[in-house]
Amino acid sequence: MVILGIDPGLATMGYGVINAERGNFIAVDYGVVTTPKELTLPERLLQLEEGVKELIDTFKPDNIAIEELFFSKNITTGIPVAEARGAILLTAVKVLGREVYEYTPNQIKQAITGYGGADKMQMQHMVQALLRLKSVPRPDDAADALAVALCHAQTGRINSDFKIR
Amino acid sequence: MVILGIDPGLATMGYGVINAERGNFIAVDYGVVTTPKELTLPERLLQLEEGVKELIDTFKPDNIAIEELFFSKNITTGIPVAEARGAILLTAVKVLGREVYEYTPNQIKQAITGYGGADKMQMQHMVQALLRLKSVPRPDDAADALAVALCHAQTGRINSDFKIR
Repeated sequence: MVILGIDPGLATMGYGVINAERGNFIAVDYGVVTTPKELTLPERLLQLEEGVKELIDTFKPDNIAIEELFFSKNITTGIPVAEARGAILLTAVKVLGREVYEYTPNQIKQAITGYGGADKMQMQHMVQALLRLKSVPRPDDAADALAVALCHAQTGRINSDFKIR
Repeated sequence: MVILGIDPGLATMGYGVINAERGNFIAVDYGVVTTPKELTLPERLLQLEEGVKELIDTFKPDNIAIEELFFSKNITTGIPVAEARGAILLTAVKVLGREVYEYTPNQIKQAITGYGGADKMQMQHMVQALLRLKSVPRPDDAADALAVALCHAQTGRINSDFKIR
């Protein structure tokens, strides 16, 4: 099954596409969709929508896994990121319906490293290892998106409430 | 010109439709779109999208004015509201393009009462007076949505960078 992982953001949205077959994970593609600061918020949301649609058209994912937001402080910078996530989530669910899944940062860390308090470097090295990549995936947002895709694949295996085809 | 004002929210989205002709404002309709807590976030975003589309189909607004979010604290409850606003804004801009306008709470208070620090009761009484309604519009979210529509109409008059037809 093809899983599209998304790390939501307004200026930079990370994406990671993996193929998960019988506990074997292959990185199909990863990268970022960026929107210029010069545009208005509505224009940037339209660009993110276009980016999500292109990813779905190109990779035809069976499932989409999207990271949930967590802000411990600084709500002001958080609002546009949450607005972007709402637009991304709406776009995803319009195409894939119930095949859209959400995971908190802690769930993702737990699934990838077995430890909810793992740091960024530990996470990136586990993503590299699980996908047998030659180097840590860059940029960070793409690595984060691969992590949420892997989290969905791993959690699905553990919970057995969804089947790897 | 018909202006659709929106007070964004996840559980309750207020809307207010006014007709603005030569500085004369008429309330066409106002109310709320609600989404049940039992649904998932993606399902609720879909319902908000549906609600916005229905409002546009029904009232064919020339412009949409959407209130911006402001949180002084409590980021946790703010995230879903901002996600809802992102989905609402995306839906609006997909149909109306550049005819979607954003206003901060302070801009709205300033436009309606001439005072950026106006309280809720002052605002509601001014909305009632400007629209010559028999009583204060209810619920609060609908009154807030009428206020942002009126703000757009008033600001347009003052700035003369948009013309009342």
